[in-house]
Amino acid sequence: MTEHFDAVDVIRAKRDGHRLADAQIDWVVDAYTRGVVADEQMSALLMAILLRGMEPAEIARWTQAMISSGERLDFAGVGRPTADKHSTGGVGDKITLPLAPVVAACGVAVPQLSGRGLGHTGGTLDKLESLKGWRASLSYDEIVSQLRDVGAVVCAPTDTLAPADRKLYALRDVTGTVESIPLIASSIMSKKIAEGTGALVLDVKVGSGAFMKNADDARTLAATMVELGRSAGVRTVALLTDMSTPLGLTAGNALEVRESVEVLAGGGPHDVVELTVALAREMLTAAGAVGGPDPSDVLKDGTAMDVWRSMIRAQGGDPDAPLPHAAHTHEVTAPAEGVLVRLDAYQVGLAAWRLGAGRSRKEDPVSAGAGVEMHAKPGAMVRAGQPLLTLHADDPMRFARAVEALEGAVEIAPRFARVDQRLILGRID
Amino acid sequence: MTEHFDAVDVIRAKRDGHRLADAQIDWVVDAYTRGVVADEQMSALLMAILLRGMEPAEIARWTQAMISSGERLDFAGVGRPTADKHSTGGVGDKITLPLAPVVAACGVAVPQLSGRGLGHTGGTLDKLESLKGWRASLSYDEIVSQLRDVGAVVCAPTDTLAPADRKLYALRDVTGTVESIPLIASSIMSKKIAEGTGALVLDVKVGSGAFMKNADDARTLAATMVELGRSAGVRTVALLTDMSTPLGLTAGNALEVRESVEVLAGGGPHDVVELTVALAREMLTAAGAVGGPDPSDVLKDGTAMDVWRSMIRAQGGDPDAPLPHAAHTHEVTAPAEGVLVRLDAYQVGLAAWRLGAGRSRKEDPVSAGAGVEMHAKPGAMVRAGQPLLTLHADDPMRFARAVEALEGAVEIAPRFARVDQRLILGRID
Repeated sequence: MTEHFDAVDVIRAKRDGHRLADAQIDWVVDAYTRGVVADEQMSALLMAILLRGMEPAEIARWTQAMISSGERLDFAGVGRPTADKHSTGGVGDKITLPLAPVVAACGVAVPQLSGRGLGHTGGTLDKLESLKGWRASLSYDEIVSQLRDVGAVVCAPTDTLAPADRKLYALRDVTGTVESIPLIASSIMSKKIAEGTGALVLDVKVGSGAFMKNADDARTLAATMVELGRSAGVRTVALLTDMSTPLGLTAGNALEVRESVEVLAGGGPHDVVELTVALAREMLTAAGAVGGPDPSDVLKDGTAMDVWRSMIRAQGGDPDAPLPHAAHTHEVTAPAEGVLVRLDAYQVGLAAWRLGAGRSRKEDPVSAGAGVEMHAKPGAMVRAGQPLLTLHADDPMRFARAVEALEGAVEIAPRFARVDQRLILGRID
Repeated sequence: MTEHFDAVDVIRAKRDGHRLADAQIDWVVDAYTRGVVADEQMSALLMAILLRGMEPAEIARWTQAMISSGERLDFAGVGRPTADKHSTGGVGDKITLPLAPVVAACGVAVPQLSGRGLGHTGGTLDKLESLKGWRASLSYDEIVSQLRDVGAVVCAPTDTLAPADRKLYALRDVTGTVESIPLIASSIMSKKIAEGTGALVLDVKVGSGAFMKNADDARTLAATMVELGRSAGVRTVALLTDMSTPLGLTAGNALEVRESVEVLAGGGPHDVVELTVALAREMLTAAGAVGGPDPSDVLKDGTAMDVWRSMIRAQGGDPDAPLPHAAHTHEVTAPAEGVLVRLDAYQVGLAAWRLGAGRSRKEDPVSAGAGVEMHAKPGAMVRAGQPLLTLHADDPMRFARAVEALEGAVEIAPRFARVDQRLILGRID
């Protein structure tokens, strides 16, 4: 990096609505990572980006600069095509757990570097840590050898992966600069591109439980990320999927592992199965793997379950150990008879979080057993007084605030009310 | 302060274009001053304020919160009305030096808490420090007794005056958040209101050498400040004055003191005299002092000069000591014959700064002798080859970069070209 810029000039350029030059972007991301540009300067720039926007070419360069702040992994040695999936985060979104084994069972390796939960959405690593002995941190060599031997890895990102993004994400969190499509897209894609996957399928959630509350924003985010992936040589496709209601019948760490194992055993809630199969087919196609078994078959014939068990064991976990469960439960019943027309994803996620399934600060622990179990989903007929939700918590003092979060989350309409149950709302490639 | 807010909520509210609640403003300014809100959070909020704006009531509350961060001085014990002047800063703007003695000579006390130069505009304290022995720092008691005995004080603000503004100003300087009318207005007015003056005259500069490059912005800034002053009980009026060309014939510390003494002796450049007299009359009127001597008279009869000498002596300075001068000079000559139609204020200021008269960082020293001396002003006839500017510097290596700054600063038109020489462009009360 030979050029030198003044941070204030870069901030002022974006503040005044100008496009940042490639060299300015390269410099400011690198200088911030090295501590030459101060946090208070970067946060002013992030706010200017949030309010002024970035052009596609700027976003691509910003993403590239974040990738260049660390190492780019290489899975050429794995010996088969690779594909990864990224979800923008939702309530009850345990799809990675069955999906990675399914895709591996179909012949494509899945290097899934995942995150932890923050706020009302759960984190894949938190969920897997419900499994006794399972460890999230692997070295690059361990990742490669597990991909070769098992075909699937779900683990924490290595420290060398896009360090600029790690620092920027922590800053955005405390400065009100999270909700920017260019910043969200570049954050996600810098990690996924640096991770070294050959193909990438994005699950962009839309609805109350998602980051994007409306379909237009979700579509813009999806299109931005697909373009970033493509321009970096990663075959990328996005599905827009519904997050107005939780996925499956559980939200919580061990509760979601249990449900995922049901899916891998050929059962489980139909929406989880539908989305797992749809995303798996996209990943196989994007990875160029044609003519192999279909994802729905590997769920039924037990080969996906075999990969799951190997994958958990390879990371020190015991797939047969009993899952932790919370000491206390509390039932929420249906207030009337009729058709359940709404079960709000955000409110269920907030309840699960308050029950102990999530964390409010990065350093907080999570409860493995806490969460929300659902007994009906929108479209179902319910009787007045039947159990709708079972809340799980280690500490019974948590129920009051969780019930408060659920105020108005459930809506029951007279018989014959129609409910839109479409899960997959669109596809962008 | 009993209420507690989350900094991110306050940032997000302004980011999304909402009006901040009074309690949010009180909290965030106080919490930032105490270090509870971090620099990176405040800079994101400042950028959101710059891009989203603030309503008049928000600006007033923000200003009030900054005043409340420190002490408000009280000059009731001085025994005569008080009036102050604030200039938004320009090139060659030495008006405070003759103005404070003039107004004091007319019977109104002038408590002028001034600043130092940063960038291309000079600072009043830097100029007065050219006078041997003169000290800028006075205690509150010293200020009051000097106002009582001499009638005029020009000194540095006390530490207890609007500490929130001091901290915010330093932050704005490094985060590209200076150029916001609400932030500029509240910064200036919080200090002036806390200073305790009874009346205030604002000299809002407009033109290349000013902060506000166009009259609309200058008028908006002036109106905002006048309203802030009035709502805080300070009789406030603003003049809009031209800063497309430097004021007077000097830009530089000792050079400007010399010119100010010429004005106090009844001579000096006509524009400096005109603006001094106009501002003095506004100050006297705003302070309710009618029937006393006219400012133009006290310049001619020596009473303003008497106050000047007493004022300098009261702060340890020797009004008779020879002024420092730079070791080296360099002449810039007129390239053609004709009417000088433009002598760009910003470029002359930049040249003076590069010659050593200003500082680029707060902690840098300034050269007392360095600066630019002008031999003609717009409207004057010049001959090809006649000296137009004399550059003064302690280090002759500085001339090259100063000459570079002056590239295109001078424009000479054929005879009979008309030049708009209006100095006072408007008045807002």
